[in-house]
Amino acid sequence: MKKVVLVAIGDEILSGLRSEGNCSWLAALFHNAGWQVKAIEVVPDDLYIIQETFTRWVGKVDHVITSGGLGPTHDDKTRDAVAAFLGCRLKIAEDAYSRIVDRYSESLKEIIKGSMTKQALIPEKAEPVHNSEGSALGIRFRVSDTSFWVFPGVPSEYKAMAEREFLSSVIDVNCWRSVWITGWAESLLKDRLGSVFEDPVLHVSVLPSVNLVQVVLRGDPDITHEAEEQVRRDLPEDCLPEGVSTLEEAVLEELRNKKITAGCAESCTGGMISSSLTDIAGASEFFMGGVVCYSNQSKVNLLGVDFKVIEKYGAVSFQCAEMMAKGAAKVLSSDLALSVTGIAGPGGGTKEKPVGTVWYSLCSGDSVESQHFHFDGTRAHIRARARAKGLELMWRYLKGYKNGH
Amino acid sequence: MKKVVLVAIGDEILSGLRSEGNCSWLAALFHNAGWQVKAIEVVPDDLYIIQETFTRWVGKVDHVITSGGLGPTHDDKTRDAVAAFLGCRLKIAEDAYSRIVDRYSESLKEIIKGSMTKQALIPEKAEPVHNSEGSALGIRFRVSDTSFWVFPGVPSEYKAMAEREFLSSVIDVNCWRSVWITGWAESLLKDRLGSVFEDPVLHVSVLPSVNLVQVVLRGDPDITHEAEEQVRRDLPEDCLPEGVSTLEEAVLEELRNKKITAGCAESCTGGMISSSLTDIAGASEFFMGGVVCYSNQSKVNLLGVDFKVIEKYGAVSFQCAEMMAKGAAKVLSSDLALSVTGIAGPGGGTKEKPVGTVWYSLCSGDSVESQHFHFDGTRAHIRARARAKGLELMWRYLKGYKNGH
Repeated sequence: MKKVVLVAIGDEILSGLRSEGNCSWLAALFHNAGWQVKAIEVVPDDLYIIQETFTRWVGKVDHVITSGGLGPTHDDKTRDAVAAFLGCRLKIAEDAYSRIVDRYSESLKEIIKGSMTKQALIPEKAEPVHNSEGSALGIRFRVSDTSFWVFPGVPSEYKAMAEREFLSSVIDVNCWRSVWITGWAESLLKDRLGSVFEDPVLHVSVLPSVNLVQVVLRGDPDITHEAEEQVRRDLPEDCLPEGVSTLEEAVLEELRNKKITAGCAESCTGGMISSSLTDIAGASEFFMGGVVCYSNQSKVNLLGVDFKVIEKYGAVSFQCAEMMAKGAAKVLSSDLALSVTGIAGPGGGTKEKPVGTVWYSLCSGDSVESQHFHFDGTRAHIRARARAKGLELMWRYLKGYKNGH
Repeated sequence: MKKVVLVAIGDEILSGLRSEGNCSWLAALFHNAGWQVKAIEVVPDDLYIIQETFTRWVGKVDHVITSGGLGPTHDDKTRDAVAAFLGCRLKIAEDAYSRIVDRYSESLKEIIKGSMTKQALIPEKAEPVHNSEGSALGIRFRVSDTSFWVFPGVPSEYKAMAEREFLSSVIDVNCWRSVWITGWAESLLKDRLGSVFEDPVLHVSVLPSVNLVQVVLRGDPDITHEAEEQVRRDLPEDCLPEGVSTLEEAVLEELRNKKITAGCAESCTGGMISSSLTDIAGASEFFMGGVVCYSNQSKVNLLGVDFKVIEKYGAVSFQCAEMMAKGAAKVLSSDLALSVTGIAGPGGGTKEKPVGTVWYSLCSGDSVESQHFHFDGTRAHIRARARAKGLELMWRYLKGYKNGH
């Protein structure tokens, strides 16, 4: 297994002014190709620290690939650091640079040549790497079986260089598969899928997010395929369809398959379910819209909820949830309607209905089904879980699947 | 200047399955507080490499803060690595863990306790750190003047721990001030505020997000205070009020100040504006609710938009936007109503109304004001900008401020 280290060089990343994207992008590609990414490091524009980083990885990995610090300004230190590391001077790589300059119009050529004193410089003991997207040369060199690739930090330039130098030779996307599972806590899921986790020739990662766990299976294509089949057999009603990685996609795919239109009435989630569904292009074909009935008055005015029901049972009750769902199906002219009403907190909880209590109803024609859940955590956490659970319930209803765990 | 190193632990980041966000978030905070972030490192879930990383930074920085690897599954190796690094055993920190378990309902307590064998374990020579958001304990210890803080990787848990442990005590919040400015592009804003950026005793950072630029001023308290005053004088109608860092907070604060109720009708933003406003606890007092009228039918049914208007001018027109805003004010019984209708793409654009065209109307009593914008980018980008611009327009309307730049 080839080993690689990815290094981003730049004070602006360490100070949080810019987020790192190049190394994570390349990490995914190498990982999918079966290479081992030993580390991603972000280091400052500092001559000494860059050299120290090179020194630390020499002989330990096959490739070290850096991003950034090759620009024309005074705080770009990477090429000086390479020269110092190799113990040599910088020289102007005229031939290599002329290929870059030739791309520009006559008037721009003069300007580009002006910055050539810096961007065309290469350490004498290193080779230039052509930049098809920008005006700085990349640098490559080799020390003790470790190849170093020094690329610019501009994402389009970095990606073009990395693709040209690596991707054709290394990528095989067949060696990993993902299954997204809803309704399970991470720890319980691990117990349930024990045998998959114990398979010695399979590498399994578990990536939990709100009400969704991504199980990543890596290894030989036949084995990962077989393991995916097993996961889907073990959890026939909890795995999202192949190629679907969000609950909102799963809902929309099922609405499309069944040619059913849907709408929703949201109180505590305040529009989060509607905005998730409309994230997806083409949602308007099957998602009619929603009502954010945050105030009691709006529940009455928009959805025809009986004010006496709210007075008697409260807005967070199955009675209110049912009237909301029925009202939404009617005003939105949708085949199916989901309603959500709950207490997101931090205030508003009582002993009988503590913060985190959420009622859902699903109305389709004359049928209405209701259920409630209790979610822990902060307001943001409760709302996020209420959103995800609502989408899960809608998907299960459409699929005819039993409820989760 | 205090020195800090941020380490993310996790195979899923190195393999590009998940992007790193905790360390970059904390890096920005430390940077703004005048601390030096020496490196951000991403290392695998590997006993040896985690120990080697600790060893490498001992005595060289004041704090090492790690993220991840404290979960209950087999690939979480961080606590074992800490124990090995300190040369001690793991013990169950019952007292600290009971505070976590107490937060859960009786039925969940049993499940949580089941995973206690792992998530409650702390190396004997270390101290537990309370987790207010999740079920794993954090760990802290000190070796040769370097403090180590080992936090979970779940962002809400990591952030809550970091805020509690650092932001109040360690960071001197008096030496930096932030102003949030809406309606400006980063580059234009820098030109406009030139003199502030040129002040040699002031450190200025600019952190742009969607339709909001955070200007961070660092230095002597008197100087930063004076600089903040100057920014607010220079841009009297673009700075959010002191202590307010989001557009939705600014809108709600102004609704509360003026005792005005509001509602909205969203087409292309699909509920994003409603869900932003209801993110804030207590929103129900002044935010009546919203209508997500994604389909034309729902615009007619819910808001009383004349179908002939849609046929003649299209749903993305000021005529439709006005009827949407008027209808929303009526059905929501709100003093003010905002409507948004646009083309988020990727399909649906025409030569006259290209993808990214968005119309807004604000209706208050008999008055209706409309304007349109054009946003570039992907569907997600256009929707995000349409959301933020809508909130900006609502805020400016309430404040009586002119439109932005």
